[in-house]
Amino acid sequence: MINPLDAIEDKAFGKLQIGLIGYGTVGQGVVKILRSNRTAFQKRYNAEFNIRTICDRSIDKKRIHGLRSVKRTKKYQDVVNDPAIDIVVELIGGKHPAKEIVEQALRNGKDVITANKDLIANHGLELFKIAQQHGRHLYYESAVGAGIPMIKTVSETIAGNAYRGIYGIINGTCNFILDEMSKKLCSFDDALAEAQKRGYAEADPTLDVNGMDSTHKLAILTFLAFQRMLPVKSIYTEGITDISHIDIAYAESLDLCIKLLAIAKESKGGLEARVHPTLISKDHPLAAVHGVYNAIYLDADPLGKVMLTGEGAGQMAAASGVIADLINAANAPNNPMYCNHFTQNQALRPRRIDHIETKFYIRIHAVDEPGVLSQVTGILGRAGIGINSVSQQQHDGALKAVPVIMLTDYTTEKVVRTALKKIQKLDTVRHKPVAIRMEKL
Amino acid sequence: MINPLDAIEDKAFGKLQIGLIGYGTVGQGVVKILRSNRTAFQKRYNAEFNIRTICDRSIDKKRIHGLRSVKRTKKYQDVVNDPAIDIVVELIGGKHPAKEIVEQALRNGKDVITANKDLIANHGLELFKIAQQHGRHLYYESAVGAGIPMIKTVSETIAGNAYRGIYGIINGTCNFILDEMSKKLCSFDDALAEAQKRGYAEADPTLDVNGMDSTHKLAILTFLAFQRMLPVKSIYTEGITDISHIDIAYAESLDLCIKLLAIAKESKGGLEARVHPTLISKDHPLAAVHGVYNAIYLDADPLGKVMLTGEGAGQMAAASGVIADLINAANAPNNPMYCNHFTQNQALRPRRIDHIETKFYIRIHAVDEPGVLSQVTGILGRAGIGINSVSQQQHDGALKAVPVIMLTDYTTEKVVRTALKKIQKLDTVRHKPVAIRMEKL
Repeated sequence: MINPLDAIEDKAFGKLQIGLIGYGTVGQGVVKILRSNRTAFQKRYNAEFNIRTICDRSIDKKRIHGLRSVKRTKKYQDVVNDPAIDIVVELIGGKHPAKEIVEQALRNGKDVITANKDLIANHGLELFKIAQQHGRHLYYESAVGAGIPMIKTVSETIAGNAYRGIYGIINGTCNFILDEMSKKLCSFDDALAEAQKRGYAEADPTLDVNGMDSTHKLAILTFLAFQRMLPVKSIYTEGITDISHIDIAYAESLDLCIKLLAIAKESKGGLEARVHPTLISKDHPLAAVHGVYNAIYLDADPLGKVMLTGEGAGQMAAASGVIADLINAANAPNNPMYCNHFTQNQALRPRRIDHIETKFYIRIHAVDEPGVLSQVTGILGRAGIGINSVSQQQHDGALKAVPVIMLTDYTTEKVVRTALKKIQKLDTVRHKPVAIRMEKL
Repeated sequence: MINPLDAIEDKAFGKLQIGLIGYGTVGQGVVKILRSNRTAFQKRYNAEFNIRTICDRSIDKKRIHGLRSVKRTKKYQDVVNDPAIDIVVELIGGKHPAKEIVEQALRNGKDVITANKDLIANHGLELFKIAQQHGRHLYYESAVGAGIPMIKTVSETIAGNAYRGIYGIINGTCNFILDEMSKKLCSFDDALAEAQKRGYAEADPTLDVNGMDSTHKLAILTFLAFQRMLPVKSIYTEGITDISHIDIAYAESLDLCIKLLAIAKESKGGLEARVHPTLISKDHPLAAVHGVYNAIYLDADPLGKVMLTGEGAGQMAAASGVIADLINAANAPNNPMYCNHFTQNQALRPRRIDHIETKFYIRIHAVDEPGVLSQVTGILGRAGIGINSVSQQQHDGALKAVPVIMLTDYTTEKVVRTALKKIQKLDTVRHKPVAIRMEKL
């Protein structure tokens, strides 16, 4: 077993022995940066990093440039059980054996850095507690927004603020697709194909476009902002696959744009957390976040509104977040900000999406006959849904149905869903009605 | 004298005795936040703050709500020499006696927080050195961008990155005026009057509109990003008073907008630092920074591009920065990131504006006669200035002169200045030519 006092003494001099587990794209980026900045880091941060061991399941097929004395292994135990290693960098992703690695390393008195959003969103509380019990830290800057310092900004940089709300564009793939659809007025499928062509989307883009990737990240941000770790499954999640370029074009004409937002905020004494396509004003700074860029927009008290935006993906961006964690670990070994609040703020109850009020954009395709509009608005009116504007679009000669766009007043998910089901059953209505939430930021 | 070991022991528990010097708008905001968040700060950051003394030259005329046991004084010596005080918050502004206060407090073994950009820009190096010598810290988050965590972001949050460039909108007054001129196509004077009406500009707005406020802040950011503190006077500074709504309108037609940018970047092995009105693409995120908002856009290696934006002024925003410093001071007493680099990076030589190359927007009012355009372009051509586009505007029946707008290729300040002087002397040219730098970000 490592003698914890030895470890602390070493760290006081900013000298760290690193064990790296997972030598893929990001891991190779980390090694590259550490190698080429050795002198700069020593000079500027008084931090000396030595990579002692690299663990990877295909380590025998990988070249490691410029690190002659590094140990190679396929067994993570060689890293987490090595008393000479101060800090373990976990970059393999997924839940297992990532959880076992992080847990064992912390129990063995090592600090841990991970880029694993899945792990933190699902097992963060448990791991923070273990870190606390062993007087160690768990860093995870790259888990959200890659190298954009979202974790540190929300948790530490504007310390002393209370959050009213956080609004994130935290999936670059979705933002690229929606941006592409908006620029070219192309279909979702065409935009996805373009994203894949450019390497911005996986061959299987499911976890990105169904919103789940954003939901994992939102769980982490919500915990940091509101001290409440919500079960991932309890966060309402709606992806972007149903968004049509028709809606994007109408949004444009209303000076709005559609973004996949991850939202967490206090309302009516409870906590809302949800991920869904959202209409926001084109004037809002979040509307100016284009392509694969990520952003978080924070509404904080007393600071006011702050937005942080940058490149949220890519080898070097993600590696940059790991490096920032390493330097923080070397320089502030006693900084408790990252993991000192592993207890839940139980007083803040999550609110169910059914009861959350937003305004809605509704699009219905109805036969262009007298009386249809009054049928539709009648159903909405009887459901208690106030309508702020209705516009019936130009009749297209070839089609019998015309689109009707309505913007509602504040209403709940539940009420809208029930009303739209009734509308869909009307003989005069073609296709399933579309409903997109609007957010006033 | 204070026993330094006692102070360290206290701080290990995050308990700080505060001496506040300057009880104006921001000071009152600080007290308000500390009072209403006592429990939250204890719970979340394990930090306990007690305001022991408030010093203000008009202390007898001021009410201090909710702090019964606080000592009041008009003499700053009562604060900086009190052994029971751990940390001094200096909020009086100006160079003197602010410098004496900060210096004496550091020498007496206290940490210091200041919002004083003037002080840090002009005497920062000296003060950082004193802090270092006495094992203390000097925090100054509010000095740039008020509560927007610009200082912490540039110096610490994306640790491990090297900066290629930083581009700031760091004066809310100027940004409001330019934004107002752009929205309403009104004159500078009208926009300034509106800013004053809304409380966004001082009765004497000189230091804002002449760019000097931005220059002070740029000196600080440049030091943090490039480890090079430049004399404020050596930073090229051009304010916004000469910007005409005519140029704003032409910019708009070219899909550009005009912002007062504070720029620092490495080029040709040297360091550029300059503040001037700048034409940037309307698509750039900095173009979407409206009203009194501030922003910094960082080009970092390996992270890439990151922008941070928010409300850069106001009582609570500025107070928020002081609070963040307090919490940092309480939580990370050994975090050396703020002031461990008081030495200059002498290898990085500042470049003179005369030699810095940018593209220029040039507007000339010339008599609408054959041959005038060739006279003008002839002078530019002989000076070696490449012209990327020329547009001669519609002739206005009432005027004999028509505006000619030219966009140049990269050229230096010196060459442009000389050429424009020659052009101004032409019989056919009315008014002084206008030249605005363009920046490709």
